[in-house]
Amino acid sequence: MNAPIGIFDSGIGGLTVANAISGVLPQEQLIYFGDTAHLPYGDKSKELIRHYSEKITDYLIHDKGCKAVVIACNTASSAAYEFLRDKYRGVVPIISVIDPIIEAIVEDDTIHHVGLIATKATISSGVYQEKLQRRKPDIRYAPLATPLLVPMIEEGFHNNNISHALIHNYLQNEALSHIDALILGCTHYIIVRKEIDEFYGGQVKLFDSTHIVANKLKKILEKEGLLSEGRVKNDEFLLSDYTEAFAKTARMFYGHEIKLVRKDIWND
Amino acid sequence: MNAPIGIFDSGIGGLTVANAISGVLPQEQLIYFGDTAHLPYGDKSKELIRHYSEKITDYLIHDKGCKAVVIACNTASSAAYEFLRDKYRGVVPIISVIDPIIEAIVEDDTIHHVGLIATKATISSGVYQEKLQRRKPDIRYAPLATPLLVPMIEEGFHNNNISHALIHNYLQNEALSHIDALILGCTHYIIVRKEIDEFYGGQVKLFDSTHIVANKLKKILEKEGLLSEGRVKNDEFLLSDYTEAFAKTARMFYGHEIKLVRKDIWND
Repeated sequence: MNAPIGIFDSGIGGLTVANAISGVLPQEQLIYFGDTAHLPYGDKSKELIRHYSEKITDYLIHDKGCKAVVIACNTASSAAYEFLRDKYRGVVPIISVIDPIIEAIVEDDTIHHVGLIATKATISSGVYQEKLQRRKPDIRYAPLATPLLVPMIEEGFHNNNISHALIHNYLQNEALSHIDALILGCTHYIIVRKEIDEFYGGQVKLFDSTHIVANKLKKILEKEGLLSEGRVKNDEFLLSDYTEAFAKTARMFYGHEIKLVRKDIWND
Repeated sequence: MNAPIGIFDSGIGGLTVANAISGVLPQEQLIYFGDTAHLPYGDKSKELIRHYSEKITDYLIHDKGCKAVVIACNTASSAAYEFLRDKYRGVVPIISVIDPIIEAIVEDDTIHHVGLIATKATISSGVYQEKLQRRKPDIRYAPLATPLLVPMIEEGFHNNNISHALIHNYLQNEALSHIDALILGCTHYIIVRKEIDEFYGGQVKLFDSTHIVANKLKKILEKEGLLSEGRVKNDEFLLSDYTEAFAKTARMFYGHEIKLVRKDIWND
């Protein structure tokens, strides 16, 4: 029960998910692993991403004793979620950033036409489309790759004229006209959620993977009787490669200063 | 004399240089090699970039019979130019995209304070600073990393409100105030040269690696008696990895349609 929760991502964008989990479950100890040595996952084959994800999950469960593992990365969720869920079935619950969003949309009867903005890799994987149509076959689906948003956010452009111009340019795309909900299909995008909401004047429901995933995790831990009785240890933030640039960006994604530690599980 | 000219880059940005060479030396046959399987070079170690550059240069000289090789990439020029120049001394002239710009600036007595915009990798390599200060020690040097410009250009944003906002944001940076010349230290940036020139109202001299490099190459070929007497074969455009996205972007960089051929010299 007092074991930590593992969270991993190809980089530091998943810290937005870790931050939400920390808000919803403040008594839990978190161990975050960012596989910065191998980022970006988006360019790599499904097999390789699965291999990396398995190694990280094994590390979080066996070496760090985690009681649950959250895949805080759309690309890894798409490539490795079913594989990891099946491998650890009955041992440790695995939570992806995609399936809780699909559930939330399926359960909302007011949604008929859903847009998705994401990286090129997530859009071309077709994972949201496939999962939505399996659960809600009559839903209309409008995907749009928005590849400049990640570098824009990582370079610190948000809530300014640059992000305003770029977000408007993307959201004005015809593909997204007539949507009543929009999935922010990348963990970075929470940083510009307010700007996206302003574009739509609050008229389009936004789904991002921070609080939905954190609440899903909470429900699972409750159901399994795994909620912590009180924090015993500090959170840990591990990166397989460390640079100053990561440290700077991590602060933006997590909301406040954190201590990042280099931990190369591939070579150490 | 009628042998081809080899040109290589980590990707397709170097096509802007190939296009300029084609304009200055229309009678020459060009063989372009884009090492798209290994891009971006900016993230890789100097040793690895040198290794890739040597293999490509060997291929261009030994397999394709090139009479000169242009390194149409700032990162590869920085990591491998001196090495390749020394290795092929007396065999084949090697031309970088950096040294001809340094020469042009050193020879211009009106330049006292030069700015450099480039990728993070080029800025942090310090290669322009080192070469400038060796040749013109009293010059003031103002570097600024502009990491969003490459993805911006590759995603097709130029001559619009997005590129306008981003270019203004970067060029208004205090680091660049008072410059009388600006080096566009990335082969992509020629696409937004006009926008940069408009920002300065023509009051700052711009140096990019297209025509300066093409003219330097012409001079070298003249001096060595290597100018072609007339075109015999069509240009070739080879990529170590091929995707449709490269084909689309290649058109933008070269100015018109070209036939890209996959040629994996690492595994073929």
